[in-house]
Amino acid sequence: MELAGTISGGTGVSPGSPAGGRPIRRDQPIGVFDSGVGGLTVLRALCDALPAQDFIYLGDTARLPYGTKSPDTVLRYSLQCVEALLRRGIGGLVVACNTASASALDALGARYPNLPVIGVIESGAEAAIEASRSQHIAVIATEGTINGGAYQTAIRRRNPGARVLPRACSMFVALAEEGWTSGSVAEAVAYRYLDPLFSADDAPDTLVLGCTHFPILGAAIRAVIPPHVRIVDSAATTAHTLKGQMAAEPDSRGAECSPGRIVWLATDDAERFARVGGRFFGQVLKAEAVEIIDL
Amino acid sequence: MELAGTISGGTGVSPGSPAGGRPIRRDQPIGVFDSGVGGLTVLRALCDALPAQDFIYLGDTARLPYGTKSPDTVLRYSLQCVEALLRRGIGGLVVACNTASASALDALGARYPNLPVIGVIESGAEAAIEASRSQHIAVIATEGTINGGAYQTAIRRRNPGARVLPRACSMFVALAEEGWTSGSVAEAVAYRYLDPLFSADDAPDTLVLGCTHFPILGAAIRAVIPPHVRIVDSAATTAHTLKGQMAAEPDSRGAECSPGRIVWLATDDAERFARVGGRFFGQVLKAEAVEIIDL
Repeated sequence: MELAGTISGGTGVSPGSPAGGRPIRRDQPIGVFDSGVGGLTVLRALCDALPAQDFIYLGDTARLPYGTKSPDTVLRYSLQCVEALLRRGIGGLVVACNTASASALDALGARYPNLPVIGVIESGAEAAIEASRSQHIAVIATEGTINGGAYQTAIRRRNPGARVLPRACSMFVALAEEGWTSGSVAEAVAYRYLDPLFSADDAPDTLVLGCTHFPILGAAIRAVIPPHVRIVDSAATTAHTLKGQMAAEPDSRGAECSPGRIVWLATDDAERFARVGGRFFGQVLKAEAVEIIDL
Repeated sequence: MELAGTISGGTGVSPGSPAGGRPIRRDQPIGVFDSGVGGLTVLRALCDALPAQDFIYLGDTARLPYGTKSPDTVLRYSLQCVEALLRRGIGGLVVACNTASASALDALGARYPNLPVIGVIESGAEAAIEASRSQHIAVIATEGTINGGAYQTAIRRRNPGARVLPRACSMFVALAEEGWTSGSVAEAVAYRYLDPLFSADDAPDTLVLGCTHFPILGAAIRAVIPPHVRIVDSAATTAHTLKGQMAAEPDSRGAECSPGRIVWLATDDAERFARVGGRFFGQVLKAEAVEIIDL
């Protein structure tokens, strides 16, 4: 599946990367970075889409959150993350952080012209355009992402006539980190944020989860919006974009049967990374498997 | 009112400050700093207690939160905040941030032996000991403050026999910042956190609000705990400690009638400081009144 050929106006891949050029090799690990553990929902989707692929995940937990920092600082931190991942031999990069995708994706593509780089925002915008009949699209994200307008810009670049209804949902981040992903509190918060967006006659028909924390709240979100509204999960759409950029699967089926290896890197607090990160990755993580690095 | 004389084992004032020595002069502004806007609940209490006093508030909004950073980093940032406040001529300092109070108070006292320094944790611990009959005390705070154990240590230093029941309530920070301080969502979150603490037969009789964000959730918290439980608000207790350290009021009543002046400083984003900070200070703040400084 080669997504790039079917997309007009954007590929979910940064301009400097070889989109439509040579595919990403499968024999090198894919680097994935985020400011913390939220990007583990993206890694989960990547692993599901490419179960035999090796990944290196880096959570810059010492310096989170990126969302409240200036674009220059986010770019500087992102370059440090990428350098650390390149030293470990990655063959492609997924920026699993909305803030870094908004602030650093173009610069990363220019700086590393031979490194395929995929961000979460372009993938999500592309999928929203494809999913929506009315081209009236709600986007929920953190306050920083919404105020930065990256999703709004990415959607309108593909369809200037699209209407975008943005809403910052900061409490969803706290709910996800606390592990209160379902039940009455999660649904009460979701209802308060989302009911005003979808109760009008001319409401959006598509909802973009524009924060890596939000997919684990999917059931609570689904419970409070009309059933016909399509949910675009940028973790899943990023995985779809990456899969489309990968080289063809090897002929030998044997190689596909052994699950890929994941290297876990963080910049602070392996215990919290494992404890909270396990909720996002949907699998128990062990603190002793997390290597703490200095950037 | 001179609190220091009535307190055994601690004064809420750092060791290096002249607690019990010469009082804090009223003709110089008091510096108040926090990592962001949470400390504005403390400033509100200080202004209520000392309405004619001048204050300089500094929110280090560019580098928030402090709670996830190492003690060394928090100390370095705190020293930078204090230097900036000293350049503006403060005569006393209130550390209106739990993380900085835990990590930096002793070092600040040693570094500035002539500057009276008051922190929120010692004041809150002192008040809890005074308020509790059973000496079984619940403390709620952020995950960082709870894991650091500063309240637990400060309470047990005063009464080694006290029992402390700590609970991290991270969602309260998000609720406060979102402005959802009352109503069904706030009460549902409060119930989920607090009901398990207070439903046992041998439950605590006192609850310390160990985070500067929490006082604005007071009504929601009150609604879900037994009526006999006493709430210790560390903002109010810090104001009580400061008032006890101040020089006697001037003879002239005229000076007391003119309200004190507040200088507003932040390190990033005056608009957000004013918008979110206004909720914590309980009064509309104007972004143009906030001076952005570089530390």
